[in-house]
Amino acid sequence: MTAVPAITPCGAANRYTINPMAERYSLMIHGGAGELDRVRNGLKVRPYLNALRRILVRGKSILKEGGTALDAVETCVAMLEDDPLFNAGRGSVLNAAGKVEMDAAIMDGRNLGAGAVAAVSGIANPVKLARRVLACSEHVLLAGAGALAFASEQGIVTVADDDLVTEFRRKQHEKACKAGHVTLVQDPPVPEHRHGTVGAVARDSEGNLAAATSTGGLVNKRRGRIGDSPIIGAGVYADNHSCAISATGYGEEIMRAVLAKHIASLVEFRNLDIYAAARDGMTYFANRVQGRGGVIAIDRQGRCASGFTTKTMIHGWLELGGRIAVTIRRQAGNTSL
Amino acid sequence: MTAVPAITPCGAANRYTINPMAERYSLMIHGGAGELDRVRNGLKVRPYLNALRRILVRGKSILKEGGTALDAVETCVAMLEDDPLFNAGRGSVLNAAGKVEMDAAIMDGRNLGAGAVAAVSGIANPVKLARRVLACSEHVLLAGAGALAFASEQGIVTVADDDLVTEFRRKQHEKACKAGHVTLVQDPPVPEHRHGTVGAVARDSEGNLAAATSTGGLVNKRRGRIGDSPIIGAGVYADNHSCAISATGYGEEIMRAVLAKHIASLVEFRNLDIYAAARDGMTYFANRVQGRGGVIAIDRQGRCASGFTTKTMIHGWLELGGRIAVTIRRQAGNTSL
Repeated sequence: MTAVPAITPCGAANRYTINPMAERYSLMIHGGAGELDRVRNGLKVRPYLNALRRILVRGKSILKEGGTALDAVETCVAMLEDDPLFNAGRGSVLNAAGKVEMDAAIMDGRNLGAGAVAAVSGIANPVKLARRVLACSEHVLLAGAGALAFASEQGIVTVADDDLVTEFRRKQHEKACKAGHVTLVQDPPVPEHRHGTVGAVARDSEGNLAAATSTGGLVNKRRGRIGDSPIIGAGVYADNHSCAISATGYGEEIMRAVLAKHIASLVEFRNLDIYAAARDGMTYFANRVQGRGGVIAIDRQGRCASGFTTKTMIHGWLELGGRIAVTIRRQAGNTSL
Repeated sequence: MTAVPAITPCGAANRYTINPMAERYSLMIHGGAGELDRVRNGLKVRPYLNALRRILVRGKSILKEGGTALDAVETCVAMLEDDPLFNAGRGSVLNAAGKVEMDAAIMDGRNLGAGAVAAVSGIANPVKLARRVLACSEHVLLAGAGALAFASEQGIVTVADDDLVTEFRRKQHEKACKAGHVTLVQDPPVPEHRHGTVGAVARDSEGNLAAATSTGGLVNKRRGRIGDSPIIGAGVYADNHSCAISATGYGEEIMRAVLAKHIASLVEFRNLDIYAAARDGMTYFANRVQGRGGVIAIDRQGRCASGFTTKTMIHGWLELGGRIAVTIRRQAGNTSL
């Protein structure tokens, strides 16, 4: 595991001075942190980058037209869920029972409003269901059959597992089962495809922050396992007073570190800028829980940062209304991409 | 809602200087924050206080004999679960479907190890199942049927709902249903009995911290609703570098505030002592999310603090090997107890 986090020096804005004339909306999305390695597994990078760019174009248009950060992150994450390249919604991995169980959450930085669903099956867009939990229920987190009953009341149509499961995921699961990889962490069968959680963070032109995260979880995970994605403060967090965060990686390590809230607290209580907070958060994550994963973050001024302890992280952004950038960024020292 | 938190000036130790000769183990337990009001509902206070004292005596003996903080909090919370007075294990409230669904978590401050279960039925001691998740699984949080499958593998015998449900809870649920209280927050049917989550925090003589929380949740909650108790950083948190926390109250508000981690961050990043951190945490909780609930907290030096925004909080403690104290503490200004 690489302990040194990569901090993204992204966007055109000067790191410490913000141009007051710039459009103040910013958007970041990610398709997971992992061990993607083109040389080793012949993975085609271009489709991932094209997907990120297409989704950022859509998210930018929402923010440019005065849409809310909450709408932007919901739309971007729903598009990532719809794309079978990513491990969320369609394209989700299979658990030990050979089923899809997905987690998702969304958070509104204005009032810390939050909605989340965990271990749900047959939902095409878990992030949209999470938004309904935020908007239409008195609860924050609904799991399993209870979440599906709520979806039904809300008129959200369920889909068959077959509509969510791709041929690639089916083969991946068969391979993992044949190899006897029922336990997960100790001996990952195909590291580069074991997580590909998606997420988005945004700041709209009103200065409001929002974050959303969605995932199919870990390949071969135990039935009923809930990861960090639907946990407020772990895989998702947004507070207008500090920053918006979406995390990805090994959920158990992210939950134990309460990673998103940790980084927000570094901003709020230590007055770190978002770059330093992402860096220090990743150092803490690596040192304290040997954490493998990454984050995207936008602060109240709209500055964008990312950090990860894995080999690579797939992400893209536009800072303060600027140009769209997409990358499968690798740790310094990894030259295989 | 009372916004001013009560800070417990508990124990015999001087607030700012610790006697190095004192035994350095400390223990706090709680039986929920709420609207208990002896005058209004004729509630008998004595059984609650006797139960807390009996459980603290047992916990103290564990710590005095060199037992770990983790063992002490597990034992105390299991005893609170066994006591039908409290809303956890036996005595849990019923959800909208008339069923018991319980949440519990335990956390080890040495390495941020954590185990939790959510929306489980038929488990006499959810905290013991959470301890097994911590010790014997590669996951942090298991929910519903998946958690029960894990319990079965671990040889934990399930019990019938009837063994957990008391006559009082059955009547309470019927009353809530008749009154049409399907939604929870806006119009609580019997505020003083809608939460009674239990929890424990400890520091052992080795200086290790641990925390555990367990609950039956809110009366008439939606099926599949998960509250703050099993969420690391919300209803439970322990880190040897800062403090151990167990929270109670309206779980949705605690989750949105990421309350336990917030207080730990005040200790870690703002260098507040545990009294100031509990006070500032409660002020934040009240102001930012109009939070109703409370916390118990022990810092790395073994100092004990509590804070709550509700009318009352049932809790007890022993600080640095000192005398056992139990109280149904009320906010300043409430003189009905």
